[in-house]
Parts: sequence; C-alpha cells; structure tokens
Amino acid sequence: MTAIETPPTARPRLPMGELADHADAPALVEVHPGTGRLALVWEDGARAHFPLDWLRDHCACEACRHPVTRERLHRPLTPVTRLPEASLVDGNLALTWADDHRSRFDAGWLYQRRPGQAPAPTLPARRPWAAGYVPCRVVHADFTGSAAGERAWLEALLRDGLVLLEDGPLADEEVSRLAERIGPLRPTNFGARFDVRSKPNPNNAAYTAIGLALHTDLPNWRQPPDIQLLYCLENDAEGGESIFADGFAAAEALREQDPEAFRLLAETPIDFRFQDEEQDIGTRAPILSLDADGEVLEVRFNNWIRDTLRLPAPLIEAWYAAYRRFWRLLHSPEHQIDFALAPGQMVAFDNRRVLHGRRAFDPSTGRRHLQGTYLDLDMLESRLRVLARRA
Amino acid sequence: MTAIETPPTARPRLPMGELADHADAPALVEVHPGTGRLALVWEDGARAHFPLDWLRDHCACEACRHPVTRERLHRPLTPVTRLPEASLVDGNLALTWADDHRSRFDAGWLYQRRPGQAPAPTLPARRPWAAGYVPCRVVHADFTGSAAGERAWLEALLRDGLVLLEDGPLADEEVSRLAERIGPLRPTNFGARFDVRSKPNPNNAAYTAIGLALHTDLPNWRQPPDIQLLYCLENDAEGGESIFADGFAAAEALREQDPEAFRLLAETPIDFRFQDEEQDIGTRAPILSLDADGEVLEVRFNNWIRDTLRLPAPLIEAWYAAYRRFWRLLHSPEHQIDFALAPGQMVAFDNRRVLHGRRAFDPSTGRRHLQGTYLDLDMLESRLRVLARRA
Repeated sequence: MTAIETPPTARPRLPMGELADHADAPALVEVHPGTGRLALVWEDGARAHFPLDWLRDHCACEACRHPVTRERLHRPLTPVTRLPEASLVDGNLALTWADDHRSRFDAGWLYQRRPGQAPAPTLPARRPWAAGYVPCRVVHADFTGSAAGERAWLEALLRDGLVLLEDGPLADEEVSRLAERIGPLRPTNFGARFDVRSKPNPNNAAYTAIGLALHTDLPNWRQPPDIQLLYCLENDAEGGESIFADGFAAAEALREQDPEAFRLLAETPIDFRFQDEEQDIGTRAPILSLDADGEVLEVRFNNWIRDTLRLPAPLIEAWYAAYRRFWRLLHSPEHQIDFALAPGQMVAFDNRRVLHGRRAFDPSTGRRHLQGTYLDLDMLESRLRVLARRA
Repeated sequence: MTAIETPPTARPRLPMGELADHADAPALVEVHPGTGRLALVWEDGARAHFPLDWLRDHCACEACRHPVTRERLHRPLTPVTRLPEASLVDGNLALTWADDHRSRFDAGWLYQRRPGQAPAPTLPARRPWAAGYVPCRVVHADFTGSAAGERAWLEALLRDGLVLLEDGPLADEEVSRLAERIGPLRPTNFGARFDVRSKPNPNNAAYTAIGLALHTDLPNWRQPPDIQLLYCLENDAEGGESIFADGFAAAEALREQDPEAFRLLAETPIDFRFQDEEQDIGTRAPILSLDADGEVLEVRFNNWIRDTLRLPAPLIEAWYAAYRRFWRLLHSPEHQIDFALAPGQMVAFDNRRVLHGRRAFDPSTGRRHLQGTYLDLDMLESRLRVLARRA
C-alpha cells in the first residue's frame, strides 16, 4: 500500500537579495542569445526575452547589490551591447559579461519576473460593500497572539476598508500599542493620538456631543491620513452610535445614477481649510479623485472644513446639486451601516475610502470616550507582505 | 507744515469666522436681486453675481458656523430658490431669508471671494534654480527669534526647494526642536529622527561611508516625505560634501532636449521597494509625476531601491535610455550644486523636488554626523499663513 516516488532533482536556489520566496518555479532548460537580448525557456514551456540592459541591471552579486542593505549598488549608466557568455548551471542562468563580470540568476526568480508578467498579488483586492455587508471581526487576543489573526485583520481592512477588533482591554493607550505593531503613528495637527469626547472649548466638532454627518478626516491636508483606528474605552451615554459608508461604492452608484454629478465632483477641485490660532491648513482637491483609468482612488468629504467655494458662478449651482446628490447617497440606508461601539472594541477604517460619523449623544446620561490614531497604508501593506513571507 | 486729513468713513468689519484679514476692501454700494442670484457692486466699480445657494452656504452666523471651532454647521441640503430680502447696512450686505434666517456678509470678505476670482496668493511660487543659483541662508538666531527670520526661511524653502540655516548650536536633537516649531516630525520606517553616520550593519546606504548619487528619499512610499531637514553636528572627515540638484529644473531640461525620454519617465510607473527583516515597503509610480496641465509635481529617483523593472520587453531598453539621460542631466554641472555642511548648519529641502547626495568620505580621517528628520509641506504652508496673519 506504499509507493516509492523518485524525488525530483532539486534545482539549487540562488540568493537574489530578496526576502520573499522564489523557489517554487521550474528550472531553465534553454538559453538562446539574440540581438541585445537573451531568450530563455523553462521546463514548463514558458519562454521570455530578457534585454541585456535589464539582466546587467538586476545582477545580484555582492558588488551589484549591497549584501546587508540589499540595495542596488550597480548604476546602469552604460548601455550593454555585447552579448555575455551564457550557460545553464543546474537549471539556473550563469552569465559572464564582456568585462568578465559574472552574474548568476535563479531560474525561479527570473520566471516570476518575465518581462510583461504581472507580479503575483500579495495584497487583497478592494471589494465594495454589497447589500447586507457586515464588518469582519477579529478577537484582540488573536490579533496580538497569532500571525493568522493579524493577517485576517489586515486583509479585511485592505479588502473592505473597515474591520472590527473586539474583546480588548479597557486600557488607556491600547490604541497606540496596537497601532505600533504595524507602524509609527501618523501625527497631525491634532497630535499623534487623540481623545474623542466632549470637552470645553473644542477646536473640532468631534470634540463636542453633536451628531457628526458622514465625513473623511483631514481632507484639508495634501495627504489625509490613510487609516484611522478608533478604540472605545467608554460608551454609556445615550446615543453616540457610529455610522460608516463605503465612499467608493456610493461614488459608483452616483456614476451610474447621475454621470454628470459624478463628473463634476471628480473634475472640480474645491478648497478645504482648517483654521485656529496656531494653524491654517488648507489644500485644493476634488471630492472624488480618480486614477488614470477613471477608477475612484480617494474620497474627500467633510462639510465642516469646506472652505469658500471658489468657482465661476455658472458652475456653482451645478456643484451644489451634485454635492447634495452624493450626500444623500452616502446617508441612504443602502450605503450606510451603523452600530454602537462597545468598550474594548476598536474600529479601523480606510479614511480615504470609508466615511465615518456618529449620532448625537447626551453627555448628561453617561460617558463616551474613544481614543484614536492614524497609520500609513504603506505600513499595513508592508506588514502583510512580511507576514506572508513567514506563511 | 502739518496737514489735517479727513479720515475716510470706516466700514465696520463683520466677523466671518476667518482669522485672516479681510478689512482692506471697498464698501458695497448696490445690491440687485436676479434669478437665483444677487448682483453686487462695490464702490471701486467691481461687480459680481452670487448664487443664492452660495450665499446661504457661506452664512457665518453662530448657528451656521461653530463660534469656537469656526467649522461649518450649516448643511446645504435644500436648494435655495426664494430670493432673500437684501439690503446694504454701512456698506456691508444684510440678508433675511424666506425662513427668517438672517445672514450678514462683510463687503471685503465678499470682495475677496467674488465667483471666478482667484484668491490672493499667500505662498511663494516655485522658482527653478537658474545658472549660478546660490542657496539662501538664514541665521539660526533669526529663525528662532523673529517672525521675519522664520518667514524668510519658509519662503526660500517653498520658492527654491532648499534653504540653509547657519550658526546654530552643536546640540543633540536641535534638528527636532527646530522642526517642531513648524509641525510634528513625520515618522518613517527609519524613525521620526535619524542619525546619518557610518555604522556597522547598515540597513541603508546612507548609514555607510560610500558616496551617494543624487536621489530622493523613500520613493517606495505612496507619499514620500515632503521636506527633509539635515542638521550637521560634526564634519571633520575627508570628503562627504553634500550635493543637490533641482529635479524640476532638470526635468524641464529633459523635456526640452528629449521629449520622448521625458514622456517615458512621466508615463511609465515603475516599482520601488525597500526590504529588511521587519519591512517590505513598496509602491509603483513614475519617476516624474505630472499634474493635469503637464507640470512636474514630483520626482522619485533612487537607484538603490528601484525594484525589478516590470515592463514589456520593447519598453525596457527605451526606459533605460531615458533613465540614463535624466541621470546625466541631474549630475551635470548645470544642475548640481555642492558644498560642505559646517557643524551648526542645517540644510532643509523639498524631497519631492530637490535630489540630494554626498561624496564618499573616509571615516578614518574624522567624524561626520548629521541628524535628520522630515516634515509635511502642509505644516510649512500653514505656518507661513499664520505668520502672514500677524505681519
């Protein structure tokens, strides 16, 4: 009942200055010099042409890549015109250039990097909230205690733009400790870490007890914070439920229902501005930022810090009509979810995609206290790539 | 020898929730209701039409603008169709809306905000380095001791992309103290404040003694740091001169000399990536980012952390040729300046515009120690606007 299998001959894996894996790929079986290029064929039949400039630039020897920093030391300042001597050694590629410099390329590393080949995705694709969307929940102890828990949290946040952590301790600054597992806190004019509760002489509507319509934070910055974390320490007051909407999903609904309103919000930069005694932070950007393919990249929406609308008079009425239309879509039941944060829960969301707000609360009926901070999306993606290495 | 002048009748200045001044403008002399708009005429003959939606949205009464936070409380969710009762009171505008809500508008505030009117510039325009460009210098004591010194430093930095501070103390962390006058330090994977000197097991070429070709920092982040500050504490080693180039000026030279190379660098996103045991930070962006009008917005240039060039084979050779061409322009005497930083000097530069580097130094001949940090451009602009209020 047992079968003896012949183990495949292992192709030696060559170091290429990468920490991510490139072992799982077929060996090379052919190399053909061409004009200014080498043609390579792998044992699964895949073939690709590699320009000589590219091969020389990507040499991973210790003279070309710093052995500790892994940074490129080679400067590709001279066009490579003479073909190297090329051979296959144990299924990997060996080159000797005209100046006797030698390069070794791992067949799997090259396979992953064939010109025109898209890299394997390491990050989850964004998924718009569908009807009945319910946020993913990760237990605090799983997040802090296991790579799988942390990955689940990161993947939900990058995919859905929002994720809940629950059953956490009621500990001051827990939000900072959690954030610092991922990256440094992103400081703003409100500090690196802020307390959301009603307080005297507020310089921001969040620090009152009034209801907050859906908004994104700090659209008056060139680069608003990417990711916001809000950790609930107390929530006994009547009211104060959190509300959220997927700005990308609402923008797509607007594009479908009223393409002209969508176009106006995407093509019309407006001013956002925050002023107090110490600050006057303003920038000009459209409500909807699109990429070169017309996909929504970012939503900036904050009625409190819209500055003077500086547009030619004929555009003004049309802009307000488009703004109202988007406002109503965002606040409609199809696009909005709400729930009361419980003490020990933390919500994290993509501040460039997901709008947040809250219902008014009555500070005479109890206390409501959240602690918040911001993180850079770069740090979340980096963390997920590092965790994927170990998987 | 004295003359008695009749003082002009002062138009009362109405509070509009602004901290910047709006007093220096003529009074209103006429108001004419139109269809969905009011036409206003000032005593200097200027005239403008203000849509009713705009006027209602910009009401600055305490119900419409929070009296402490100055944020907009009014939500423009209902189109305004009925004309208000409009009158001029002491040269300012008084409106009573159909629902009896009353709005008062300062004539000067409206004058500055006539639809289609560009706002008065509060920030200096960027000026490319011309032949013989010499960096502005501000003395440390002037920067810390006078608003004029701080303004001079900020204006040079925003205009030229680079400014020198000199005669500062040889004090650990002075760079952080100076930066925090402007805004919070922007932290990265290298910390909020970093030391540049050769050290064992460097994770970055800057922490070695090798020469550093011109580069921008952290182009592998979605949002590289805007402003870099480098404060010199010691510089006795042989070599180690700082070099800088105005990336925008070099890009314009490339556009003129080789439009196809310029186009390739502007339209071809490439990968940048930094990997170490704890991080894997990467993003995809072109070397030159342009705005909608084709103006250069940002340069990303860092040969160490260029990741695998993932392009279709036919584009690869053309891309390397364009890259070489831009490299040579940047490092040519027309575009590059160099000087040795003296202890007590600090250079600040726009990391998205100005490339920096250094010549190799010999750590056996002396010590070289810089301390650096990053700031957000938003904070510099804010600081300059606040200083302009007091001017």
